[in-house]
Amino acid sequence: MPNDDFDPAFPPLAQAQITIVGLGLMGGSLAMRLKADATCRRVVGLSHREATVTAATRQGVVDWATTDPAAALAHADIVVLSTPVRILLRQLQDFAPLFKPGAIVTDVGSTKGDITAALAALPAHVRPIGSHPMCGKEASGLSAADPTLYENATWVVSPLRRTPPQAVAVTEALARAVGAVPLRLEPGRHDSLVAAISHVPYLLSVALVLAAQSVAEEDETVWNVAASGFKDTSRLAASDVTMMMDILLTNREAALATMGRLEAQLHALADALSAGDEEVFRAMLNRAREQRLALYPPDSPAPPPAPHR
Amino acid sequence: MPNDDFDPAFPPLAQAQITIVGLGLMGGSLAMRLKADATCRRVVGLSHREATVTAATRQGVVDWATTDPAAALAHADIVVLSTPVRILLRQLQDFAPLFKPGAIVTDVGSTKGDITAALAALPAHVRPIGSHPMCGKEASGLSAADPTLYENATWVVSPLRRTPPQAVAVTEALARAVGAVPLRLEPGRHDSLVAAISHVPYLLSVALVLAAQSVAEEDETVWNVAASGFKDTSRLAASDVTMMMDILLTNREAALATMGRLEAQLHALADALSAGDEEVFRAMLNRAREQRLALYPPDSPAPPPAPHR
Repeated sequence: MPNDDFDPAFPPLAQAQITIVGLGLMGGSLAMRLKADATCRRVVGLSHREATVTAATRQGVVDWATTDPAAALAHADIVVLSTPVRILLRQLQDFAPLFKPGAIVTDVGSTKGDITAALAALPAHVRPIGSHPMCGKEASGLSAADPTLYENATWVVSPLRRTPPQAVAVTEALARAVGAVPLRLEPGRHDSLVAAISHVPYLLSVALVLAAQSVAEEDETVWNVAASGFKDTSRLAASDVTMMMDILLTNREAALATMGRLEAQLHALADALSAGDEEVFRAMLNRAREQRLALYPPDSPAPPPAPHR
Repeated sequence: MPNDDFDPAFPPLAQAQITIVGLGLMGGSLAMRLKADATCRRVVGLSHREATVTAATRQGVVDWATTDPAAALAHADIVVLSTPVRILLRQLQDFAPLFKPGAIVTDVGSTKGDITAALAALPAHVRPIGSHPMCGKEASGLSAADPTLYENATWVVSPLRRTPPQAVAVTEALARAVGAVPLRLEPGRHDSLVAAISHVPYLLSVALVLAAQSVAEEDETVWNVAASGFKDTSRLAASDVTMMMDILLTNREAALATMGRLEAQLHALADALSAGDEEVFRAMLNRAREQRLALYPPDSPAPPPAPHR
């Protein structure tokens, strides 16, 4: 049910203080972009590392940063949690008493099931809403942050039943302000879709590197014949491990289900190849190629296919 | 055994005519680069398509092109076959009577076992040697050709027992002339290494697209949440199907063996995730990440790791 315990009036983005919890790749990039465009009144950063606070302040990534949660959150109109999923879940509990009444509390976590449950448990005087911008890179930390990271990315918004429409509108405005394209998705649906498109590709990439490594143990020349195909297919294996652990452990069921789908396809390919069944083999390869070309037409440099725009 | 049936004198590259059979991505890029640098006396193209002959001639990719094998091969000091592997195998038989005595006959085929056997069966008056430049892109055809394609690529050279040392030296000089780095590998060893680093990554990419497609059949919003991770991991699925069919069908055993290694890694990952065994799971993810970072250090924009240079 909508919640009426707080003043529904919400300052326009330009007058809001946004506090970003965690100044890594996602949080740092968000802060940089908001600062660069002067989207809001004040960008505050909260980090548990003193060195990150110092770096973010010195580089002008934020207007002000601190390691003190109470100080960072006391005046925040919008809070964006940008820490690994399981840390974020703990922070939602720990920070619950610190949020300003009326604050919009959102996150950029890559799984939405557990996070939505934790958001739902927040005190009635805050306005929680789940978010997941579909962007990233394998490098992590503030040093990898980039104000263009969110450009053209799909920004999934997962409102709770208690989320007031205004908080949805503000979150979508925030997404658009950094160049992203909002897309509303229910948490469970989000989690099963991103398992297929993001979490399982990561596991594939890891498995590929480990399989090549097992070949390298017998003949390390294998690395000398690596070309751009291996480089691209293995890229996700360089992702931050703590972040990926948290994602996979909070989306285990969907990830395992998609791995099952993938294994079925690998078996079908191996069977056709093994049997020399050229007709079946060619049909599978053609189907994959046509799908990939439809998603990323060769002449279009644009990153993702976005029929919802 | 070395073959002495022909004059061992070989013109320097600058005085040689090079005939490239097949003006697609690989052959077209090679021709362009040789022409641009005036590496040899004459670059001749042979294509079975009249339109390709016309386009290559008009664009100045070659000095002369034809659809007539006899005319293209009669004066060629070096012949580079750049057609899909199974077409190439047929051409080696068909063209056998057409090669000029003393000609070096090589190829850019992605598998070396069957090709080496076919090269070995060539008449005694030619000098056959297998080649495989480790580069490419998912786009195919002359329109995708690029004179920088071979830059910094490892160029595998697989001499036969009958290949005279001079033909090895000329082939390695050709590789260096287009910016590549020669690496001698025995055909069987080449085939098992590239299965792990190139052919199986392609199959993984295909399986990933087909698995995502099976999700899309139930919920096509999956494509809207695709970001750069999916884009990179699926890139190889857009490769030319005829080319990949030929590669996989002429390297079936090694490809299937590597798929077995990969499946073992996927199972180990799924087991650790399913059991929530964080220690084992983290160790695997860390090992893959460290390996990937060692191969492609984040600060180095250079494409492949090349400890042999």
